[in-house]
Amino acid sequence: MQHVIGVDFGTDSVRAMVVDAANGASLGSAVSHYPRWKRGLYCDPDANQFRQHPLDYIECLERSISDALAQCPAGTAATVVGIAIDTTGSTPVAVDQSGTPLAMHPAFAENPNAMFILWKDHTGIQEAEEINTHSRKATVDYTKFAGGIYSSEWFWSKILRTIRHDADVRKAAYSWVEHCDWIPFLLTGGEDVSAMKRSRCAAGHKALWHSDFSGLPPNDFLASIDPLLDGVRDRLFQDTYTSDEQAGTLSAEWSEKLGLSQEVVVAVGAFDAHMGAVGGEIAPYYLSKVMGTSTCDVLVAPSAELEGKLVRGICGQVDGSVIPGMMGLEAGQSAFGDVYAWFAKLLDWSLAELLGQSDLIDDDLKKQILDESRQKIIPLLTVQAAQVDPVESGVMALDWLNGRRTPDANQALKGALFGLNLGSDAPKIFRALVESTCYGARQIVERFEEEGIPIKGIIGLGGVSKKSPFVMQIMADVLNRPIKIARSEQTCALGAAMFAATAAGIYLRVEDAMQSMGAGFDVIYEPQPDQAGIYENLYQSYRRLGSLIENEMHGD
Amino acid sequence: MQHVIGVDFGTDSVRAMVVDAANGASLGSAVSHYPRWKRGLYCDPDANQFRQHPLDYIECLERSISDALAQCPAGTAATVVGIAIDTTGSTPVAVDQSGTPLAMHPAFAENPNAMFILWKDHTGIQEAEEINTHSRKATVDYTKFAGGIYSSEWFWSKILRTIRHDADVRKAAYSWVEHCDWIPFLLTGGEDVSAMKRSRCAAGHKALWHSDFSGLPPNDFLASIDPLLDGVRDRLFQDTYTSDEQAGTLSAEWSEKLGLSQEVVVAVGAFDAHMGAVGGEIAPYYLSKVMGTSTCDVLVAPSAELEGKLVRGICGQVDGSVIPGMMGLEAGQSAFGDVYAWFAKLLDWSLAELLGQSDLIDDDLKKQILDESRQKIIPLLTVQAAQVDPVESGVMALDWLNGRRTPDANQALKGALFGLNLGSDAPKIFRALVESTCYGARQIVERFEEEGIPIKGIIGLGGVSKKSPFVMQIMADVLNRPIKIARSEQTCALGAAMFAATAAGIYLRVEDAMQSMGAGFDVIYEPQPDQAGIYENLYQSYRRLGSLIENEMHGD
Repeated sequence: MQHVIGVDFGTDSVRAMVVDAANGASLGSAVSHYPRWKRGLYCDPDANQFRQHPLDYIECLERSISDALAQCPAGTAATVVGIAIDTTGSTPVAVDQSGTPLAMHPAFAENPNAMFILWKDHTGIQEAEEINTHSRKATVDYTKFAGGIYSSEWFWSKILRTIRHDADVRKAAYSWVEHCDWIPFLLTGGEDVSAMKRSRCAAGHKALWHSDFSGLPPNDFLASIDPLLDGVRDRLFQDTYTSDEQAGTLSAEWSEKLGLSQEVVVAVGAFDAHMGAVGGEIAPYYLSKVMGTSTCDVLVAPSAELEGKLVRGICGQVDGSVIPGMMGLEAGQSAFGDVYAWFAKLLDWSLAELLGQSDLIDDDLKKQILDESRQKIIPLLTVQAAQVDPVESGVMALDWLNGRRTPDANQALKGALFGLNLGSDAPKIFRALVESTCYGARQIVERFEEEGIPIKGIIGLGGVSKKSPFVMQIMADVLNRPIKIARSEQTCALGAAMFAATAAGIYLRVEDAMQSMGAGFDVIYEPQPDQAGIYENLYQSYRRLGSLIENEMHGD
Repeated sequence: MQHVIGVDFGTDSVRAMVVDAANGASLGSAVSHYPRWKRGLYCDPDANQFRQHPLDYIECLERSISDALAQCPAGTAATVVGIAIDTTGSTPVAVDQSGTPLAMHPAFAENPNAMFILWKDHTGIQEAEEINTHSRKATVDYTKFAGGIYSSEWFWSKILRTIRHDADVRKAAYSWVEHCDWIPFLLTGGEDVSAMKRSRCAAGHKALWHSDFSGLPPNDFLASIDPLLDGVRDRLFQDTYTSDEQAGTLSAEWSEKLGLSQEVVVAVGAFDAHMGAVGGEIAPYYLSKVMGTSTCDVLVAPSAELEGKLVRGICGQVDGSVIPGMMGLEAGQSAFGDVYAWFAKLLDWSLAELLGQSDLIDDDLKKQILDESRQKIIPLLTVQAAQVDPVESGVMALDWLNGRRTPDANQALKGALFGLNLGSDAPKIFRALVESTCYGARQIVERFEEEGIPIKGIIGLGGVSKKSPFVMQIMADVLNRPIKIARSEQTCALGAAMFAATAAGIYLRVEDAMQSMGAGFDVIYEPQPDQAGIYENLYQSYRRLGSLIENEMHGD
């Protein structure tokens, strides 16, 4: 018996799962929520600032693995041979020469600029624009493998924004690392950042690393954007690694903390959706959609078949970012479940504010009512929205409440609602919002196909895919394609476990791990022809309205 | 001592006010709510069908006058010399030859098509379109004094729609009368509809009556729209009357019901906003805005100064519709307070549905909480929206949730919300909706001025003008003009009382009655220069977004 541990760092919490390396069965699984993040520390949602403290990661990493192991039969810990981790991204942090995040030093312990800058932090919108402007003027367009548009959610935008606004962090930052690179470094007891094995996935998708450029873009180009970037490249990295490779083995410190052998292999890290796609058994020309607060859409195709091909307007194309030997193409929607959550929160205003001020009931009862209501709001909207006829309702939405990631990233775009009349009620608006997120998904599928990448099928992963048959059926109707839903509730952690098993040498290739450890699919949503016909027309309206607003807003 | 009674039929209720004819002081005032309407009978909001039963009017007329008189000192009834009434409009009904609404006959008692078709009923959208199409083809454009666009809210659209869809009503209908014509006819004991004195205001603004056409449009034109209209005109009317004239005196029946003398003069009726403008002391080139669920905007100018002038895209221009000898120009917004009420109802969904399903509290407490919450929701939104910076919020709205009345009537237009992000909360959206209704008001002001009608000042009347300093200040800022608010809470009933006094011969002209009986103004909202500058830019965005959506929707 050999076991591996997959660790999945999400936006709010980290999950560790102990898996049988032979068949993928889970023996124990535990979640730990970031305590500082939960209290809203270091964030400013109005300014789109979202930061996470490294201690949140360290504490929760230890707790989640320990809790997961505690669920397993006695003796399991001794049979663990590998750990792999995935994280959100691009989620970079400034580090010193030892690879320690600056916020770990007392002087920076409360400074948000010395913490991890979470994927959804959009403080670098202006910097992204400048990077794009300079890329278009440069002799080489360094964004060409990132869909031609650099995002405020990514590595360089965040670095530039931070060093412009915080001279202390700028001076103290020796280098910058992604969350998915730092955790393996931490677990393996790394002491010199220049020895850190950097993830191909993170570097290629977010840091503009490409073999054609012999690595990261040249210093000249970076310094032309802002002299403050002069010299930063040299303290970053040259080489990158795929997650079937080892970052090292467990350090003495973490071996003791977790009760695992120092021989446990720690794999190179990667981003969640990419390992999730593996956990969800992605295959060539399948689009794997992780559908949670946002979506991350991943497609793989044999690298040889895409040789020299550039796909316009997606987030990136990176050889080996998902599966070694395959090109990984990434796209996504900046808000998906977040759109529904926004509406639920809007409706919650009346409960929270009006009930909150009422003298008719006491605070305990208020809290109970609020807790109950918050749990019921989306399920109840779903039940009522399922009765809405989308044509009769006439409400249409644009899903860009957090900007638009794909196609053609533009974080400055905003959401909209159209076709409102005095009878437009909450279920009608909710349905329109759900439909808009499905139209957004269709725009991505169409862009791949317009660019000559055929899509053989859609795989659904993540919270919304498991929790909402309502959303999934509308998506199947809007896409006019079947959507198959991965059986595993934890495809990211399972994918990480597959990489752990591969890095530990149990499997030669991650495809072999997928074959043995995969959990298969449990539901297929088939498109309903009558609904697909209706949505064909409504989707065209969505496109027209979207173009109008995009042209009008000029991106702001 | 002489007293007069002003009676104001609104959308939900009727108010009667007993007034001292010498100084306008109110001695008694009472409201009676239409009981059938309150229960939602005969209406279908989803189909925009809104009907009112004549018994609602009769019962409430008697009750409101009796209740108002009951508040007055003993002996007041004997000193009443005149009654005038105003109503919503266009609110027509099919009548038999005796002038009795068909719904008063047992065979039609439950037939909504035999009842008054309330102003906001939009079932005749298609018929309005056909009237417009035919008007543009005809040698004379009969809509030219109605702003060039006939509305589904008006007389002919409603008649045509009804006779097309209900053969029984068509066959039984001898003629059609407006609510404001029928009440004086009822009070004076009229027995032959051909003798009914028709209101200049109603006929001119809604039925296309004009002296240039020698009355209503010719039968040929009407029959060309639909042969079903052939012959209808001949059973309507030729002459029209202003409200300084007498419809007659009180019938024996109503004299007894109300305890008033049979010598009491009953004035010719008119629409609420027009009498309201008089009650609010309108003066030449002032725009009087009655701001309630919708707005009705009225401007007067000496008829001689507007000789031969056509104002494009307003609702109508009628000599004597407000003040005899003056041209009355009408415009308006199809939804105003209704926009705010729509949003409050949207937010109420969570309270009503989630609280409604909760087992944590009993039904009585639920009802108390809901009642309390519903009263507080707009006041609380107002408090929080006052703190929102409109530029920072970025949310914009189009106020066309009930279509657009002015400029350029188009009932098929819909409302919209733009600039939504994940931080767009209820107060931000509420503020955007309020702003949009103020931008809608500005479009009307600008249209008058573009058409060469200078606007010297703005007078605010009606519920929102009295209840919401927040809305009024934003309107002053958006219009960049001061708004003075009439002191009287009941300008429509007061205006009716002024007409009652004039028709009864106490005053020679209604202007004299205004001078003696007017209540003046109590607040003036002055524009704040910094806000006005901000709203100048936002208003231009509203115009651009509105044009985009209007062009895209092609009106549907």
